[in-house]
Amino acid sequence: MAPSSTEAAGGTFVVFTPSGKRGRFPVGTPVLQAARSLGVDIDSVCGGRGICGRCQVELSVGNFSKFQIDSQAGNLTEPARNELRYTEKRGLASGRRLSCSTKLLGDVVIDVPESSQVHRQIVRKRAEARAIEIKPIHKLHYVEVREPDMHDPSGDFRRLCESLREQWPNWGVADDVSCDLPVLVSLQKALRAGEWKVTVCLREGRRVVGVWPGFRQNIYGLAVDIGSTTMSAHLCELATGEVVASSGVMNPQIRFGEDLMSRVSYVMMNPGGEVELTRVVRESINYLAGQVADEAEITREDIIDLVFVGNPIMHHLMLGIDPTELGGAPFALTIDTAVNLRAEELGLSLHPNARVYGLPCIAGHVGADTAAVILSEAPHAQDAMTLIVDVGTNAEIVLGNRHRLLAASSPTGPAFEGAQISSGQRAAPGAIERVRIDPVTLEPRFRVIGCEQWSDEDGFHDEVWRTGVTGICGSGIIEVLAEMYLAGILKADGTIDGAAAARSSRIENDGRTFVYRLSPEVVITQNDVRAIQLAKAALYAGARLLMDKMGVETVERVILAGAFGSHIDVKYAMVLGLIPDCRLDKVWSVGNAAGTGARMALLNADARREIERVVRRVEKVETAVEPRFQEHFVEAMAIPHATAQYPNLSREVTLPERPSPEALMGGAKGEGRRRRRRT
Amino acid sequence: MAPSSTEAAGGTFVVFTPSGKRGRFPVGTPVLQAARSLGVDIDSVCGGRGICGRCQVELSVGNFSKFQIDSQAGNLTEPARNELRYTEKRGLASGRRLSCSTKLLGDVVIDVPESSQVHRQIVRKRAEARAIEIKPIHKLHYVEVREPDMHDPSGDFRRLCESLREQWPNWGVADDVSCDLPVLVSLQKALRAGEWKVTVCLREGRRVVGVWPGFRQNIYGLAVDIGSTTMSAHLCELATGEVVASSGVMNPQIRFGEDLMSRVSYVMMNPGGEVELTRVVRESINYLAGQVADEAEITREDIIDLVFVGNPIMHHLMLGIDPTELGGAPFALTIDTAVNLRAEELGLSLHPNARVYGLPCIAGHVGADTAAVILSEAPHAQDAMTLIVDVGTNAEIVLGNRHRLLAASSPTGPAFEGAQISSGQRAAPGAIERVRIDPVTLEPRFRVIGCEQWSDEDGFHDEVWRTGVTGICGSGIIEVLAEMYLAGILKADGTIDGAAAARSSRIENDGRTFVYRLSPEVVITQNDVRAIQLAKAALYAGARLLMDKMGVETVERVILAGAFGSHIDVKYAMVLGLIPDCRLDKVWSVGNAAGTGARMALLNADARREIERVVRRVEKVETAVEPRFQEHFVEAMAIPHATAQYPNLSREVTLPERPSPEALMGGAKGEGRRRRRRT
Repeated sequence: MAPSSTEAAGGTFVVFTPSGKRGRFPVGTPVLQAARSLGVDIDSVCGGRGICGRCQVELSVGNFSKFQIDSQAGNLTEPARNELRYTEKRGLASGRRLSCSTKLLGDVVIDVPESSQVHRQIVRKRAEARAIEIKPIHKLHYVEVREPDMHDPSGDFRRLCESLREQWPNWGVADDVSCDLPVLVSLQKALRAGEWKVTVCLREGRRVVGVWPGFRQNIYGLAVDIGSTTMSAHLCELATGEVVASSGVMNPQIRFGEDLMSRVSYVMMNPGGEVELTRVVRESINYLAGQVADEAEITREDIIDLVFVGNPIMHHLMLGIDPTELGGAPFALTIDTAVNLRAEELGLSLHPNARVYGLPCIAGHVGADTAAVILSEAPHAQDAMTLIVDVGTNAEIVLGNRHRLLAASSPTGPAFEGAQISSGQRAAPGAIERVRIDPVTLEPRFRVIGCEQWSDEDGFHDEVWRTGVTGICGSGIIEVLAEMYLAGILKADGTIDGAAAARSSRIENDGRTFVYRLSPEVVITQNDVRAIQLAKAALYAGARLLMDKMGVETVERVILAGAFGSHIDVKYAMVLGLIPDCRLDKVWSVGNAAGTGARMALLNADARREIERVVRRVEKVETAVEPRFQEHFVEAMAIPHATAQYPNLSREVTLPERPSPEALMGGAKGEGRRRRRRT
Repeated sequence: MAPSSTEAAGGTFVVFTPSGKRGRFPVGTPVLQAARSLGVDIDSVCGGRGICGRCQVELSVGNFSKFQIDSQAGNLTEPARNELRYTEKRGLASGRRLSCSTKLLGDVVIDVPESSQVHRQIVRKRAEARAIEIKPIHKLHYVEVREPDMHDPSGDFRRLCESLREQWPNWGVADDVSCDLPVLVSLQKALRAGEWKVTVCLREGRRVVGVWPGFRQNIYGLAVDIGSTTMSAHLCELATGEVVASSGVMNPQIRFGEDLMSRVSYVMMNPGGEVELTRVVRESINYLAGQVADEAEITREDIIDLVFVGNPIMHHLMLGIDPTELGGAPFALTIDTAVNLRAEELGLSLHPNARVYGLPCIAGHVGADTAAVILSEAPHAQDAMTLIVDVGTNAEIVLGNRHRLLAASSPTGPAFEGAQISSGQRAAPGAIERVRIDPVTLEPRFRVIGCEQWSDEDGFHDEVWRTGVTGICGSGIIEVLAEMYLAGILKADGTIDGAAAARSSRIENDGRTFVYRLSPEVVITQNDVRAIQLAKAALYAGARLLMDKMGVETVERVILAGAFGSHIDVKYAMVLGLIPDCRLDKVWSVGNAAGTGARMALLNADARREIERVVRRVEKVETAVEPRFQEHFVEAMAIPHATAQYPNLSREVTLPERPSPEALMGGAKGEGRRRRRRT
């Protein structure tokens, strides 16, 4: 047979998109093999046996004149037995081919779709948020292992490793693969049950942490955010990054104390009490793991990796470390670097060899949760000066850009979460979350969580009866105070103006002070206003302190993280002066960024190295020892005044005039000093 | 003040012996600091604070003219407060100085005695055995840690690591020291209890595995030899290598089967039975650890490292691996590389972070015990062709030198241990261990374990009544058969010669065959002879097979390892033909070489690397599939004949003539075939 033109030219020419990598290969080379040898990012679990379907590719369409490929028809082999069987059993979309089972016959341009790439990206909902890229820490490899031979006695594990290296070239399998003891214990049975075909889970290319007979497609990881109030968990398939189930529970430590400081006190008063606090939080993680596993129809043993984040006290308690030192100056962490552990060491019931990664803490008050927020929001990758505020019981504040990062914790107390507010409650059905006040009549309208209608709309009463109006949550408090201010009920110094009582019966005299009746069930008292003033002053002062340290007067981007941030209307936050001025279209509520950061660390080995590196660069500012924090705090007690402080905001709302600081501090200064302890 | 001549010359000149390292240092430099900066091997636990006394040195005596040092008087500072306190509390030998507390004033020659060196050597009793060098895997470091500072918030662990690097320069402390979880959990309390002074145990310079408040001088390791019959443990202080306590117990697995094969059968017949076998062996190690800890007046928690050796089945059971695969061809090991584990994973109750190292196995029948024997006897470091025989229930045989190593296991069965012998028993009080037979009268004399006298000496009966004569042990059997042969009672084909009955009533007719009455309690039967013939033929054939593979006709050195080897008289072993001919002064009984190898791996990091490297080079020979093994086995059934095979031995004893092989095999061939299964 005469050689074809392709062979005459020295093999077939193949170009891979989107990478643009190209090369010449002998006719008959499998597409997957050509791709991997060029370093094209294309996934596989079965190692090219037509089982897993991860290596799907398409013939590229369009004009390939620059590659001088005129027609691609017939330049790939027809579907082989493997591919037909896969198509029959699991379906293959039109135009898709299994690159492992398809061979090169002539010159082609081949597209590797995102879903076939190992390092695929997960695009996030917010346009400005960076995509989550997958760079697996744990990877499944299907291998066929040589049987033992008396003439060449070598352990089953040695032959397994040899097969791995031989059958997975160009996959970064280390020369000295090691393994966990439970793998050794189960290895011989798995090899024989799988008739010398097994799937192994390789950690970072060099340690076998799991072995299963035959072929296995999926492994899972859990991203856990241990909040002082709630704990949440996302179950992810580790190759695709898909969140397959999520769940949340109350942090069971609450029964030892609502806030962090009371839990530390519990330990101080009950030596060894940290053991109990540790036990219940670990139990809850086991419970959450069971919940999400059930939902995803897998077992806890399918979970091979876990990442956790939390504030320093939650972080240390998770590790079983007595948090007493974190309860008082100098707030010494035991460890501020990332921790790599085995789930078993933490009493977690996952895969017997599951690993646990804890993100690094930054300082005694700035924890792994803040590190995760940084990882998620990447201020260190921004040119713009970015302020990140994560409001929980305390507020963690990060300010910076690619050149410099500062972080601090501000003692806001739990007022933003509805605590210390007379009608306050957590964000739950029945809580008022949105408020508008007519500036003329001073009549309010509001919305309640769990009910679609506003309170003045038809059907509100038909809907709201189920829960009733049970109180007001954090975002509701912010809105009602801002609206009271804009309507003239609240003065800039935070006093409920008795004079307004003349305009509406909703302003009631409560003895020494006045209250605003928002609904039959909910009134806003002068003490409520003071509590929010103290919290927002602390938050603002923390941000301001970091701006001083950074030497900037304004910020270019503001990111509100945490559950509070995700419900708040940023405009009202500015009206009350929670955060510095910023263009409103440059302020984002990002929800549980800590959870997102945990998920990134779960899915991407580089993300772990990145946050470990970045955290070391973060300059920590301790508000408790900064005199300027006190000054800013006092200054920030007032509800701010128009253009000087909020030029951007002033374009959106007209703010009343501002009283003198002296007038302001008459009522709140002492109170502020009294309350300025960590909670 | 005018500068002294020393200062004029640019500082003091110091020479350290025995290393010969030398340098010039400013006046006032502590001797320890000068030594470490020159790379002189000198130990310290307290890091130069005059507490530990490990860094003792002496002024060298003798002629230093080549160093141009005329007088050393006054060239070191007088004892400082630290040193006086140490001398008062713990005593300092005359002439000794603490190098950390002694400063250089002028030129000196300073000797670092062996006991002050980190890499000191332990000289072994046998002249030809190589010394055990210490190269610690775990090392204690006393550190003073900077207290936490709110203005520079860093975790306690970070500051601990910084202090380690600062206070222990030139000690190989890694840049990225990590730690075990239990260290983290106890770190803050230890730092505060020790008032910021702690002693840490650093593993390989990069992982903190222990932390104790204040100063601590010693840590310990355990070398464990898991034999099928007995288990032994040596407790070593890790810095000095001193064996501070030893203990042994019967292997409790014996209740599941006397020999290895019956234990494998137990697992085969009782699925999951390996769990029980594993449990009892681990329990025994905990028991042994408790025994030796009590003896040394420490606790099990002071034991930070453990090394174990054992045959492949013991090794796998120790790891919790089902040994079934090792019970039949192809005798596949699960793992043939060294294992590094945590004691906790194996259920061992030592220090919470104690590590376990298992030496590598070589093949399905040649285990980590043989690897340890190789490490101890170092055939790979010899020019001479060396044969090592480790006789237990099977015989492990190693042959080679620095160029090539071969290993095999020979199925000797347990006859050498006294099993399958009519009056056989283990080596224990009451057992006959030495025998001489008068070649004229055929009257025997013998010695019994536990009794000083020979049976024909005065006082024998006064002594032996305590135990009685209970049987005959392995070495006794070898001697009685050899003596019977030399006396003409035993023919070269192994038949007890009925003609000898005419010469002595001790030869009795037992029906079809004859027996030799050694004592009222012990007779040697024809079947006893056959059992030893089979065992010794297997042993010899294994050695011969390796010699064939190696292409040598003779060996230059023979090492007999194991309990059997340590009691046997090598001359008699040659008379019976257990081992090939060799000059008798080149044959050594080395006792428990496997235990010695385990101790070396415990004390020396390089020893671990060495045996891992050497084991990979060992060529494994499987006797079961080698036709030549069968041939040698048949040949070796006879008791050998003088000069042809044993020119060296012939100089010592006169051997009777040899019968034809045909005559030999009449009685034993079938029997041999029947018994050739692993036991």
